Amino acid sequence: MKYPPVHYHHYLGLDPLLSSQHRKSEEYGKPAHDEMLFIIVHQTYELWFKQIVFELDSVLCAFQKPQIAETEMGFASARLERIVSILKLIIGQIDVLETMTPLDFLDFRDMLYPASGFQSFQWRLIETKLGLRIGDRLAYNQAPFYKSLSEDQQKRMLEVLDQPSLYDSLEKWLERTPFLQGENFNFWDSYKEAVNRMFQDDLNTVKQNPRLSEEDKKKNILGLEQTLKSFDALFDEKAYEQLRQEGQFRLSYKAMHAALLIQLYRDQPILQTPFRIIQALLDIDETMTTWRYRHALMAMRMLGQKIGTGGSSGHKYLAEATAKHKIFGDFFNLTTFFIPRSQVPALPKSIADKMSFHY
Amino acid sequence: MKYPPVHYHHYLGLDPLLSSQHRKSEEYGKPAHDEMLFIIVHQTYELWFKQIVFELDSVLCAFQKPQIAETEMGFASARLERIVSILKLIIGQIDVLETMTPLDFLDFRDMLYPASGFQSFQWRLIETKLGLRIGDRLAYNQAPFYKSLSEDQQKRMLEVLDQPSLYDSLEKWLERTPFLQGENFNFWDSYKEAVNRMFQDDLNTVKQNPRLSEEDKKKNILGLEQTLKSFDALFDEKAYEQLRQEGQFRLSYKAMHAALLIQLYRDQPILQTPFRIIQALLDIDETMTTWRYRHALMAMRMLGQKIGTGGSSGHKYLAEATAKHKIFGDFFNLTTFFIPRSQVPALPKSIADKMSFHY
Amino acid sequence: MKYPPVHYHHYLGLDPLLSSQHRKSEEYGKPAHDEMLFIIVHQTYELWFKQIVFELDSVLCAFQKPQIAETEMGFASARLERIVSILKLIIGQIDVLETMTPLDFLDFRDMLYPASGFQSFQWRLIETKLGLRIGDRLAYNQAPFYKSLSEDQQKRMLEVLDQPSLYDSLEKWLERTPFLQGENFNFWDSYKEAVNRMFQDDLNTVKQNPRLSEEDKKKNILGLEQTLKSFDALFDEKAYEQLRQEGQFRLSYKAMHAALLIQLYRDQPILQTPFRIIQALLDIDETMTTWRYRHALMAMRMLGQKIGTGGSSGHKYLAEATAKHKIFGDFFNLTTFFIPRSQVPALPKSIADKMSFHY
Amino acid sequence: MKYPPVHYHHYLGLDPLLSSQHRKSEEYGKPAHDEMLFIIVHQTYELWFKQIVFELDSVLCAFQKPQIAETEMGFASARLERIVSILKLIIGQIDVLETMTPLDFLDFRDMLYPASGFQSFQWRLIETKLGLRIGDRLAYNQAPFYKSLSEDQQKRMLEVLDQPSLYDSLEKWLERTPFLQGENFNFWDSYKEAVNRMFQDDLNTVKQNPRLSEEDKKKNILGLEQTLKSFDALFDEKAYEQLRQEGQFRLSYKAMHAALLIQLYRDQPILQTPFRIIQALLDIDETMTTWRYRHALMAMRMLGQKIGTGGSSGHKYLAEATAKHKIFGDFFNLTTFFIPRSQVPALPKSIADKMSFHY
Repeated sequence: MKYPPVHYHHYLGLDPLLSSQHRKSEEYGKPAHDEMLFIIVHQTYELWFKQIVFELDSVLCAFQKPQIAETEMGFASARLERIVSILKLIIGQIDVLETMTPLDFLDFRDMLYPASGFQSFQWRLIETKLGLRIGDRLAYNQAPFYKSLSEDQQKRMLEVLDQPSLYDSLEKWLERTPFLQGENFNFWDSYKEAVNRMFQDDLNTVKQNPRLSEEDKKKNILGLEQTLKSFDALFDEKAYEQLRQEGQFRLSYKAMHAALLIQLYRDQPILQTPFRIIQALLDIDETMTTWRYRHALMAMRMLGQKIGTGGSSGHKYLAEATAKHKIFGDFFNLTTFFIPRSQVPALPKSIADKMSFHY
Repeated sequence: MKYPPVHYHHYLGLDPLLSSQHRKSEEYGKPAHDEMLFIIVHQTYELWFKQIVFELDSVLCAFQKPQIAETEMGFASARLERIVSILKLIIGQIDVLETMTPLDFLDFRDMLYPASGFQSFQWRLIETKLGLRIGDRLAYNQAPFYKSLSEDQQKRMLEVLDQPSLYDSLEKWLERTPFLQGENFNFWDSYKEAVNRMFQDDLNTVKQNPRLSEEDKKKNILGLEQTLKSFDALFDEKAYEQLRQEGQFRLSYKAMHAALLIQLYRDQPILQTPFRIIQALLDIDETMTTWRYRHALMAMRMLGQKIGTGGSSGHKYLAEATAKHKIFGDFFNLTTFFIPRSQVPALPKSIADKMSFHY
Repeated sequence: MKYPPVHYHHYLGLDPLLSSQHRKSEEYGKPAHDEMLFIIVHQTYELWFKQIVFELDSVLCAFQKPQIAETEMGFASARLERIVSILKLIIGQIDVLETMTPLDFLDFRDMLYPASGFQSFQWRLIETKLGLRIGDRLAYNQAPFYKSLSEDQQKRMLEVLDQPSLYDSLEKWLERTPFLQGENFNFWDSYKEAVNRMFQDDLNTVKQNPRLSEEDKKKNILGLEQTLKSFDALFDEKAYEQLRQEGQFRLSYKAMHAALLIQLYRDQPILQTPFRIIQALLDIDETMTTWRYRHALMAMRMLGQKIGTGGSSGHKYLAEATAKHKIFGDFFNLTTFFIPRSQVPALPKSIADKMSFHY
Repeated sequence: MKYPPVHYHHYLGLDPLLSSQHRKSEEYGKPAHDEMLFIIVHQTYELWFKQIVFELDSVLCAFQKPQIAETEMGFASARLERIVSILKLIIGQIDVLETMTPLDFLDFRDMLYPASGFQSFQWRLIETKLGLRIGDRLAYNQAPFYKSLSEDQQKRMLEVLDQPSLYDSLEKWLERTPFLQGENFNFWDSYKEAVNRMFQDDLNTVKQNPRLSEEDKKKNILGLEQTLKSFDALFDEKAYEQLRQEGQFRLSYKAMHAALLIQLYRDQPILQTPFRIIQALLDIDETMTTWRYRHALMAMRMLGQKIGTGGSSGHKYLAEATAKHKIFGDFFNLTTFFIPRSQVPALPKSIADKMSFHY
């Protein structure tokens, strides 16, 4: 055999791993059985977080090359999907943790003060590497989020905050998407036409609907006009930039268009993997949101409305962070600019050809 | 054999069952593939809702007998736990539904207007049978929730609203809990003493802590006093009733005490099954909340910030209902009145004996 | 609005759906509570089976066109993955069904005789459409599997058995894979070379290993020679066909090669979606196997070692079918022909170019 | 505050924990991305195994006291159920591990030789503490299972093998179950009567069934007689001991009777928690079996039919161990001795009273 023999026990570092569970309650002479569960649940979280960071780093690396290789998109998409699997798994760990009752928690809760999940460096790292900025975060105890970390960790976090995130790299990648404009095709003009045509059709349907009273017609027409108006954000760069400055959008105008193109023409061979990548990012965002929410619910169950172990109203913070800490919100909102597939402008043959393989 | 032979196909009524999927998009000549998934996910939801109602009815029946039989508590607890299993399962169905993308949904979304999950009679029935009252509900489109139901369903719902819910029966059952007061034991007095003793201990710890500045000491003492004050609600019936009228509590004073007794002395044989029942109700509440929340997230993903199929801002409504439609909230809040097990007053032997078996 | 208004209740056909639960135990005047769960679990199974058949049909349709469209591969892969999600979901239903205890089952078990899950037409249909042939199946009660179906169903099953399955269409699609042979590239020759080179390297490592005794060297060399020999099946068409006739392989020689090419070069843009399709089929096979196995375990728990409701030793049959009813077994076995990625021959630039996009 | 402040990072021992991932592939200069996942999945397994051992030890401790306290049965049951939750969770980890493809595994597989999951000391410990004996195990590589462990571990395992397992303690606990025999009640006689009565009824139904041919009647009668005969094992201690020596049963005659009593009269207050404990043990056995089976499937997927990393045909071993390593098999088989609840003899009031509370 080419390599020296390996034993399962040493390979997995089980000696340090399995001797890292130190119950405070035992240290203080009042052993609380369920503290072991509490420790192990959080340790497995952190092991999984390490894995997520590891996957993210490899995807970041692929997206940050000056020339992104098409041959790396397959694994980029697979690794983002793996992150989703891991996140779904660890949401399930909450069910296990909840086999500990509040009364059991009380046996050692005070001994942990002020330790708290808010001090998880790796979770913060995941959020930051994905693209959550300081300003996107809910303030916690009137201090920037990284203040709850150790000094070393703060330093490393500030460095990471300075580097381009997956969000940033993705935005650049989207901006470089070809096909938005070509000799015989201007995606934007055709899309605008389709939207207007659809609006006129809907308008006529309303006007000619004998079942509708005049009042209902007016209401319906008003609704349609508002919907149409909402598309202005998409067609008018200035209007878009205005809304972007107000915080309604984060993606650049060009990247937004590219994301829409990918969604609408996802069946074209060249867009199949990019579409999957966007899907995986939506899934990551949604699953992280669910994770935060389930934790908020659990905190409320464990603590009632008292203060959390970290000295702050944990569950309320979590519930709010849940909504606010979304990173790829624009991909969610993009949906409002979709039109039914039957109305989506057909691609000119020359474009469709370029989006396909030739052998 | 004693019974006429049965075939799987007829036994399960597969003819009506499997011919009840009618895609509107097909009816209108524009078949949308994913509408089938949409229909089947919702049909399986409704089948599971029927099962939940069926389980609830049997538990209600046990709890509404004039004399509740101890021999029925085992299955009551098992059936409530079964409801939890079902709710967890159907939360998983959201993952399947989300394999439908917003663009696919757009192919048939308009054809369903104004149908919406808010019109699910059975889900409303479950909430009502558990104990959600009209006034507890978030108003939806400025009308009582049952207005979205058919006339027959409204009538049935109003009847159910008039009958005692599981919440009501449970409250009565709790109020009848013995052991709260006996010859040699007054649970309430001993508990109050324990709380005060704990407070004095904590106070001394703070005062004698050399690591604390005078200012920190003051802050800590203030915190302790507030905590102690929060127990007033528990020890002073008038204060409790006041808070109850303000909507801070729903359970009667007596039922609240009984629930606390069950939690603190859950290891006593006689309290093991009651404790399980309370746990199951907490699980049901939490899982229903998670279900609503996951639906809100999904709605946001499917629709962006546009209006829902039912003509209302679906996801926002869901997100708010999520927090508000909790039924057994008092059991969650009860936690704030727990004290560490080491401080809980020991039961006099005569009481402990009555809580146990003798054979 | 363009379409007449729709109510949730009618849209979902809830009247027929929710009135299709008829407990035999109620009919016979001995209502057994848990029979409702039994019915509803199986009804939701059948609804999900309908969905799986529906997805399969759409994928079959795409694969059976004379010219398979690259633009249809994205959804083919997504729909196969959806089937995996559904299968994982319904495996979870077993946990719910197992909240029924054997004693509860006994209350109505005899009333269902000889109904049994083996009579599920749709499950058989799924297996058949995927590619399970009559001869691949374990005999059940000494009769072909379709004998337990109704006459109508038998007729339809025989028709489906005569049509090309997904397996058949996939095999043809694989056989048409380009790139196996080109002007400057013969995949097969380069792969053979790589395998031989690897074998020589391993051989040298063993021979020069000072830690190995002469005896161990002999043993290791023998092992290596056997491994090398196992590759004969891959490189020698006659040897392959021989093994195929013996039932060791099912895929044609050419399709086998194509499947290997896809696995080894999956990162090439043109192979990313085909790779995903193969992965999804492996997942379907494995998940169906798990489903059967979990059912076998449950049957054993419900029935002990007595005979099943259908009059046959259900759990033993299921446990054996578990192993035998695998459809894409060749994709599993293909693994033995993999070599480490570092040894896989590099693609000539002209081939790599053809596997990529040009815009 | 009473206790010195604690930081999340140190409390969880994250320094040793997160620096225990050493990829062999990195050490050898050929970093394989997916080796990190491989390590982390197995490390989380081992953390969860530690938790399971911890829970088991606390349950063992309760069951091994000379006088088992009724007040400890509630948490015994809850902790066994927690083990079930953990086992279900880690079955889900296989889905995550399977995001690694066989080709990715090949990049580092040889470097791990001969490490293998069979060397997991903690998994073996769980099996042993539950009650799996050396002789119950499938031989692995012609050596006792503990030979794959380190010397220290072997020593500890042999010690544990010498101590009473949960199985042993449970058997003793069952044997002490009261109520099997009393002044006015002999459970066994009444049960035997009920079985005979049921047999006579069934016999008459068959004989008087005009739909049955003479031949069918004979066949049916034969079947009934065989079923009745199978009960001999239950009613005849000698016959039982004979079967027990042949390995058909493991539980003592008396314990078997007690287990049956608990199952049949589980609704009696005193039997509710014992019933839950037996349920939890069945769940543990079934879930461990599923875990082994899923691993066997995964091994087959990763390795095809080649040899495993540990040098043995891993998946085949696993598949066989799956069936053989069941510990509480008697509880599964007990089912065959159940009779429908309507036939179960009613308890005399004096017995029912003793099984209930009095306050």
